[in-house]
Amino acid sequence: MQDKYLDFVGSGFGKWLSANLGLPQPVPLRRYVPGEPEFVGPFLVGAAPGGSMRETLAALFAETGVPTRFHESDPEWLGAANRHGQITGRFVAPTGKEGEAFDRIGGIVFDATGIASVDGLDALYHVFHDGVRAIGRCGRVVVIGRPPEGCKTPEAAIAQRALEGLTRSLGKEVRRGCTAQLVYVAEGAENVAASTLRFLLSARSAYVSGQVVRVHRAPAVSVDWQKPLAGRTALVTGASRGIGAAIAHVLARDGARVLCLDVPAAQEALNAVAQEIGGEAMAYDIAAPETPAMLAQQLAALGGIDILVHNAGITRDKTIARMTEPAWRSVLDINLAAQLRINDALLAAHALLAGGAIVCVSSISGIAGNLGQTNYATSKAGVIGLVQAGAPLLAERGITLNAVAPGFIETQMTAAVPFAIREAGRRMNAMSQGGQPVDVAETIAWFANPASNGVTGNIVRVCGQSLLGA
Amino acid sequence: MQDKYLDFVGSGFGKWLSANLGLPQPVPLRRYVPGEPEFVGPFLVGAAPGGSMRETLAALFAETGVPTRFHESDPEWLGAANRHGQITGRFVAPTGKEGEAFDRIGGIVFDATGIASVDGLDALYHVFHDGVRAIGRCGRVVVIGRPPEGCKTPEAAIAQRALEGLTRSLGKEVRRGCTAQLVYVAEGAENVAASTLRFLLSARSAYVSGQVVRVHRAPAVSVDWQKPLAGRTALVTGASRGIGAAIAHVLARDGARVLCLDVPAAQEALNAVAQEIGGEAMAYDIAAPETPAMLAQQLAALGGIDILVHNAGITRDKTIARMTEPAWRSVLDINLAAQLRINDALLAAHALLAGGAIVCVSSISGIAGNLGQTNYATSKAGVIGLVQAGAPLLAERGITLNAVAPGFIETQMTAAVPFAIREAGRRMNAMSQGGQPVDVAETIAWFANPASNGVTGNIVRVCGQSLLGA
Repeated sequence: MQDKYLDFVGSGFGKWLSANLGLPQPVPLRRYVPGEPEFVGPFLVGAAPGGSMRETLAALFAETGVPTRFHESDPEWLGAANRHGQITGRFVAPTGKEGEAFDRIGGIVFDATGIASVDGLDALYHVFHDGVRAIGRCGRVVVIGRPPEGCKTPEAAIAQRALEGLTRSLGKEVRRGCTAQLVYVAEGAENVAASTLRFLLSARSAYVSGQVVRVHRAPAVSVDWQKPLAGRTALVTGASRGIGAAIAHVLARDGARVLCLDVPAAQEALNAVAQEIGGEAMAYDIAAPETPAMLAQQLAALGGIDILVHNAGITRDKTIARMTEPAWRSVLDINLAAQLRINDALLAAHALLAGGAIVCVSSISGIAGNLGQTNYATSKAGVIGLVQAGAPLLAERGITLNAVAPGFIETQMTAAVPFAIREAGRRMNAMSQGGQPVDVAETIAWFANPASNGVTGNIVRVCGQSLLGA
Repeated sequence: MQDKYLDFVGSGFGKWLSANLGLPQPVPLRRYVPGEPEFVGPFLVGAAPGGSMRETLAALFAETGVPTRFHESDPEWLGAANRHGQITGRFVAPTGKEGEAFDRIGGIVFDATGIASVDGLDALYHVFHDGVRAIGRCGRVVVIGRPPEGCKTPEAAIAQRALEGLTRSLGKEVRRGCTAQLVYVAEGAENVAASTLRFLLSARSAYVSGQVVRVHRAPAVSVDWQKPLAGRTALVTGASRGIGAAIAHVLARDGARVLCLDVPAAQEALNAVAQEIGGEAMAYDIAAPETPAMLAQQLAALGGIDILVHNAGITRDKTIARMTEPAWRSVLDINLAAQLRINDALLAAHALLAGGAIVCVSSISGIAGNLGQTNYATSKAGVIGLVQAGAPLLAERGITLNAVAPGFIETQMTAAVPFAIREAGRRMNAMSQGGQPVDVAETIAWFANPASNGVTGNIVRVCGQSLLGA
């Protein structure tokens, strides 16, 4: 769907008018286009003493060919960069004085894994104070820390937990389409973090901001970063349109064979999507009692699938006093119970292969609650519960389990929302615009990447750092 | 500070105008006044099969003399009520038809501890569908569940986690000064939940809504509910004005001897507060290096304290690019590092007694981040880390550790905020108004109550269910 205001602000007159009226000034987000550069450098690299991410980062920037600048507080970067043949140089910070030259950068990556005290947080101040002003449009900020729950001392846990306040504030300060995230990398999971760092530093994460991601230890998996899903089979529910169709497209683009599932009533649109991506259409009603067993049998016969995306969902909005019982039950059944039944059936039939990934779709409503959505929010909060309860269990089978929680995404569904409510939803985020279905799809593709095998139990919002939350 | 819009909307003309313009219609919140009824019943009681809270609830309502109504789906309530001599009757639900009689209620309490499946959530639909319309002004909704992390099956954990979506949505639907909360009571902690249920059902929790509270197993402690802090000594930092002064007043009202601490520059105001409440003034700079040891020695000499409230805090707002290093450091030092130093010193000197409580003050900024507050948000996110990391350790010493996270509270500090930003902050919550310092103080008094010994590791927002979050 079209955001006419975004187009208007992009025009010369619109830009002038919106600036003078103090209106939001969204910038068009840079999104990933195959063949075009994924990363816009150079990246300013900073670190607190004792950090453990230097080699991983130097290798990553060397592989991707993105130049870096290092902050004066971390001269050791130079050595690591040289070892990896990575092009770097000392960062020249903007002084704020007109006409003085400085390094324009595509973002800042800070290795905070070495921070074990409140005083240690000062290292962040220096790098961000000096660097933030130099970040260009649609830049990227990533702070890498240690999961507080795994820290050796309470003070280390406290300092690491404090990083959330910093990154979420930075997300609200950087503006102009920039994003800011916090990645908690467990000890020993440094190399496994590459898929996550690539995603968060690239144009693929255009509408993901203010998020906290946890990466756990896992065996190293190497992939072709251009086709990370090559040789993998994915099943996407609700694939006939909107976000589901975008997911099918992106997974296919990344190399997966995609089975597109939707209700029989959507067969025509479903066939079209399947045909566009060289996938297969499966017309099933996920809520029907016989579906899980049938699906499991059919998928097992195909040799099993690697990726299961629970995207299908419905809304039946009313305040609870006016809500009918079928509206309550159908939303809980389709959005939550059906996912459980399908997971159980597929796992029992070994139709979901080891090394695979389940990705669920939650919602900001499931996090913050929403007026008129007691049923929907309950189902989507349940999806969060599913990820939290299920991830440790599935880890034993080598399967990851994560969820995306979309905010305001431009679809037929949101286009039908009344204007004033739609505008509020669109603008109440750090990007001052709605996201696109592809933004949700890219996030799911990151979860589905075999190299993301250390990424499990995460709920990641795709919401442009919406102000709404809990 | 005064919210003139709230006064205006309370007038006949203001009410008419605001309704016709579609403006927010905040209602004056009912707050606790000693001698006036704390609870406004009757409460509608509902339960899913297998719930374990019935006896605790029947005893609580019998003790407080609040009548109940039971929902037709839970006729067993009648037996429990009779056993406890609790006045009850079958709830007559509003039909929506004009002129038909129904029971007006002061709120709904639902025992969801027995829910172990997604289907089991239907029990909630029936009670809230029938009951929500009957709730009067400033009513109370409390759903009681089991902590998902302690559930025996994944599906039980999922269903219990789903309750968050329901209660947060209800909080946004009930309006007219009503609140909605979720209390996760661990198995065996049913009786320990009384202090929490009393707080959340009473007028004391006027500005607390949309919160999730965890109650752990702990030894039963009986208190005089009119003076629960009798015989206890509390230290409150930053006590000379605003929220700190309100905390000192409320703790004293509840029976505590209160030591009021603030910087020497605030001595005069501090003395006045101490005098008003019959407490003592202590003029110390908490950031000074010698303070922790001096404090510990002095408090140990007094025989130790039971309650430590870390309220002192400062802001030095600027975007990080414009922030000076002293502004960064002083905020982190005073708001976070000083608390750690004082805790360590008091614990080492055994100046904080077993059975005691530490209460910290975090902030919505620490949860959601805020533009211009990288330093403040980092410090307040660190406070959350302090509670999460410290609560299990302090539990071994019989000390609880919790935090309040205020949203927009009417103080001299918020009165200085520019009008448009202040109005946005005030209205962007389910109550369409700012809170009062006393609302934060009442929440702290609940944490400090010896009968809240099962309440630890909680971060509770006092924000009128602000829309802002993460």
